Amino acid sequence: MDHAGTTGQAIRHFHRLDDLNDRQIEDVLDLAARLKRGVSRTDLAGQTVGLLFFRPSLRTRTSLEVAMHQLGGHTVNLNAASDFWELEARENRTMDGVAPEHIKDAAAALSCYVGAMAIRPALLGKSWAVDRKDEQIRSWMQHSRVPVINMESALWHPLQALADLLTLRETLGELKGKKLTIAWTQSPTPSSPAVVHSILMAALRSGMHVNIAHPTGYDLDADVMEQANSLAQTQGSRLETGLNLNDAAEDTHVIYARSWWGLESYGQPSLSAHQSSRTTGWCVDDRIMELGDNARLMHPMPIRRNLEVSDRVLDGPRSLIIEQAANRLHTQKSLLSLLLRQ
Amino acid sequence: MDHAGTTGQAIRHFHRLDDLNDRQIEDVLDLAARLKRGVSRTDLAGQTVGLLFFRPSLRTRTSLEVAMHQLGGHTVNLNAASDFWELEARENRTMDGVAPEHIKDAAAALSCYVGAMAIRPALLGKSWAVDRKDEQIRSWMQHSRVPVINMESALWHPLQALADLLTLRETLGELKGKKLTIAWTQSPTPSSPAVVHSILMAALRSGMHVNIAHPTGYDLDADVMEQANSLAQTQGSRLETGLNLNDAAEDTHVIYARSWWGLESYGQPSLSAHQSSRTTGWCVDDRIMELGDNARLMHPMPIRRNLEVSDRVLDGPRSLIIEQAANRLHTQKSLLSLLLRQ
Amino acid sequence: MDHAGTTGQAIRHFHRLDDLNDRQIEDVLDLAARLKRGVSRTDLAGQTVGLLFFRPSLRTRTSLEVAMHQLGGHTVNLNAASDFWELEARENRTMDGVAPEHIKDAAAALSCYVGAMAIRPALLGKSWAVDRKDEQIRSWMQHSRVPVINMESALWHPLQALADLLTLRETLGELKGKKLTIAWTQSPTPSSPAVVHSILMAALRSGMHVNIAHPTGYDLDADVMEQANSLAQTQGSRLETGLNLNDAAEDTHVIYARSWWGLESYGQPSLSAHQSSRTTGWCVDDRIMELGDNARLMHPMPIRRNLEVSDRVLDGPRSLIIEQAANRLHTQKSLLSLLLRQ
Repeated sequence: MDHAGTTGQAIRHFHRLDDLNDRQIEDVLDLAARLKRGVSRTDLAGQTVGLLFFRPSLRTRTSLEVAMHQLGGHTVNLNAASDFWELEARENRTMDGVAPEHIKDAAAALSCYVGAMAIRPALLGKSWAVDRKDEQIRSWMQHSRVPVINMESALWHPLQALADLLTLRETLGELKGKKLTIAWTQSPTPSSPAVVHSILMAALRSGMHVNIAHPTGYDLDADVMEQANSLAQTQGSRLETGLNLNDAAEDTHVIYARSWWGLESYGQPSLSAHQSSRTTGWCVDDRIMELGDNARLMHPMPIRRNLEVSDRVLDGPRSLIIEQAANRLHTQKSLLSLLLRQ
Repeated sequence: MDHAGTTGQAIRHFHRLDDLNDRQIEDVLDLAARLKRGVSRTDLAGQTVGLLFFRPSLRTRTSLEVAMHQLGGHTVNLNAASDFWELEARENRTMDGVAPEHIKDAAAALSCYVGAMAIRPALLGKSWAVDRKDEQIRSWMQHSRVPVINMESALWHPLQALADLLTLRETLGELKGKKLTIAWTQSPTPSSPAVVHSILMAALRSGMHVNIAHPTGYDLDADVMEQANSLAQTQGSRLETGLNLNDAAEDTHVIYARSWWGLESYGQPSLSAHQSSRTTGWCVDDRIMELGDNARLMHPMPIRRNLEVSDRVLDGPRSLIIEQAANRLHTQKSLLSLLLRQ
Repeated sequence: MDHAGTTGQAIRHFHRLDDLNDRQIEDVLDLAARLKRGVSRTDLAGQTVGLLFFRPSLRTRTSLEVAMHQLGGHTVNLNAASDFWELEARENRTMDGVAPEHIKDAAAALSCYVGAMAIRPALLGKSWAVDRKDEQIRSWMQHSRVPVINMESALWHPLQALADLLTLRETLGELKGKKLTIAWTQSPTPSSPAVVHSILMAALRSGMHVNIAHPTGYDLDADVMEQANSLAQTQGSRLETGLNLNDAAEDTHVIYARSWWGLESYGQPSLSAHQSSRTTGWCVDDRIMELGDNARLMHPMPIRRNLEVSDRVLDGPRSLIIEQAANRLHTQKSLLSLLLRQ
């Protein structure tokens, strides 16, 4: 099957969910469901995907590596901190600094060896205005001669979004008109808003209504919210933000919990700590879950138990977190199979 | 073959040799011997075992990875220090500390991807009373939905015991009534007594008589010794401990050399160094070997040459150390094949 | 095919290009060309090569791992810094120091698991007289029971030489009588002269004339130069060294750019920095390229852009750097296939 042939468009890179058109998303989710039911495909024999980690990973690394093995292929796992050296992303520089190699050359060389490369870029953590540009992964996308897959940048985590979409469909059936609540949670080590940005756009694209609950100072990226508002309008969906957790959870079908940095205090540790110390009570527990309409709990992991979500909710029948983790495998197998056989 | 079917009992986890019944040990050793003779099995195609290292490894990592590849399967190798993050083992905590994830969730998520997981847990090194509980690996065993294999905890190293049993049988034939001497050796970086505990129980279970030679202050774990004494009584085997090296080596068939910490001074570096500096002459050399009955030398490696065992013994015809290393591969292939096809 | 059978000599280790005779080099390059055209070989199913890195690697690691996967086999990738421990190389020592294990035992144990092992040894960086002995990799070669492949020692990088030879042949056809210019380039983090030593000997062995351009104090290893001069005489080739870049580039067919340490100031950082600060103008740009006879640019990477070679040359039609990187894969597949099926 020539995937480009059925959709009229080949997949170049997978930086964000929007890099797939609706037909391609349907194809990925349909094949994922079949693979999950036990359909076996080993059509990637001899193929390799390079996984380059500039930040740690447990689920993403393992699920991608297992996905490729089950498809007959292989991953080369490169840990920037221990395996190789710093890479330059800026163009037209005289490279007399720390980095002995340019992403341009690393990407071109690796393109000779692998059929695709997946990147988890570093976050500099100094300024959101800088990190939100996703410059590192964009440099890989610009210079790679094979598809580049985003394993979570500052802005997006599209592999998580695919797994979450499959989980939502399996649980709720038709998504149009259903309600998703994104719930900010507390953590001494918050994440980038990448996962939240991705589930937000995925839910709106599926016709869901979205409530976002977060304390003051934890607005999502302004440009992403503009895209989200525009998409909501097109879809006829409601999108509300800045809600408190009680209001946001009312009558919802899914609570998607996740901690993220305050983008205004991003890169200012003392301000950030002060801000965080003022915010209490943002833990999803039974009381919150009861406010919903037979609500289910989603979280992309890692989870700080009893700080972000209570043990009772996580270990109870409403929790979908293991299904989400399991679906990482099935949706990634599907995506890789379609991407590498183009 | 349904392994549980022939033994009446499926293998749940492999924390210590006692997790296998006699029939299962026979099955593992028999299949290992056939695999060593060149019988080929590739029945684990598409299967993955996750190897999680919280401490370094050379032989265990390489032999398990090669074992899975030769069986048609794959290992995902995760190095806690460089690949991911700290994990919480304690239950019911509000996780506001360093660890952003609980073993409970990591184990559940990885169970979605791999058919078994092998763990080399960290040793905290503060108190033997704490470390001897093997809490980390017990947490993995409790929460994993797939079999957990111990790659050396504080207390046990059952993979080494399987390889050692095969080596002993190949060398001595019938083990019942033969004599094994466990010889404490000197090292500035001693190990946990895990290997020694495991070979001790394996030898007794095989009907061997066991002498343990060690300086004052280097008794093995009291609870393990109680189990060992009870087993010796059941088997009608002699078990003597606290011997000096000369007495222990007399008429023995095998000297098993290994350095281990003094458990009384465990976690007290200065006391431990003082204690160690008083102990000299615990190196296995030709003179010691000559005391035995055509005695053979075993050691699980790594070996500090000429401190633990002399070059002449290690490189001479009495040494079984390479056979032990080789048998790690064959016994692990056998174990994995039986465990994963259950 | 029994490779030893066609050449009358089996390949024992691959420390330097001279470990292959002319017929073996032809065999490697011929098979590499066929593999590059798409001929598929998967005759290494179930075979494993151990890759041991005591220094970082991007291309070598990835291309060897992909090579083995495409041949049906597998690599075990061991990073000395994070995966295991220090190893002793000196013989007959009482090992009471830092290293808990001798290369002798590590090599013997790994020989039980893998069909070959590839080593990138550490450079101590104190004294060229010490590092030039390649003691670590020689210890592995002495004690390994399977072939040892050099992944770049202080003295040689024969895997790069094979890829470079294929690239030169593809580009220039018959090499005899053609001119190669080795151009020292500036870098705050120079490399060992291993790559340059290897291309020097490979080019002379192919009958090429060689010019070496470098500033005062950057002579190559004296013993290697003696071998090179002797080989040039045998081959009837010209070999000139110590040239300035302009003179060396005149009428040349290939400029091979690479930075290397001044061996006289090796291990003396302040002297080395002073020496380096005096050397300017050693960047290969369009003006230098124009001096040649339709000259092509080679460099083994990593490259410091606009310090070693200009962006315009690297990204222009004269650059062979991507072909060199691609040929690492094809020549290594060929070498591994011939080596492991002996």
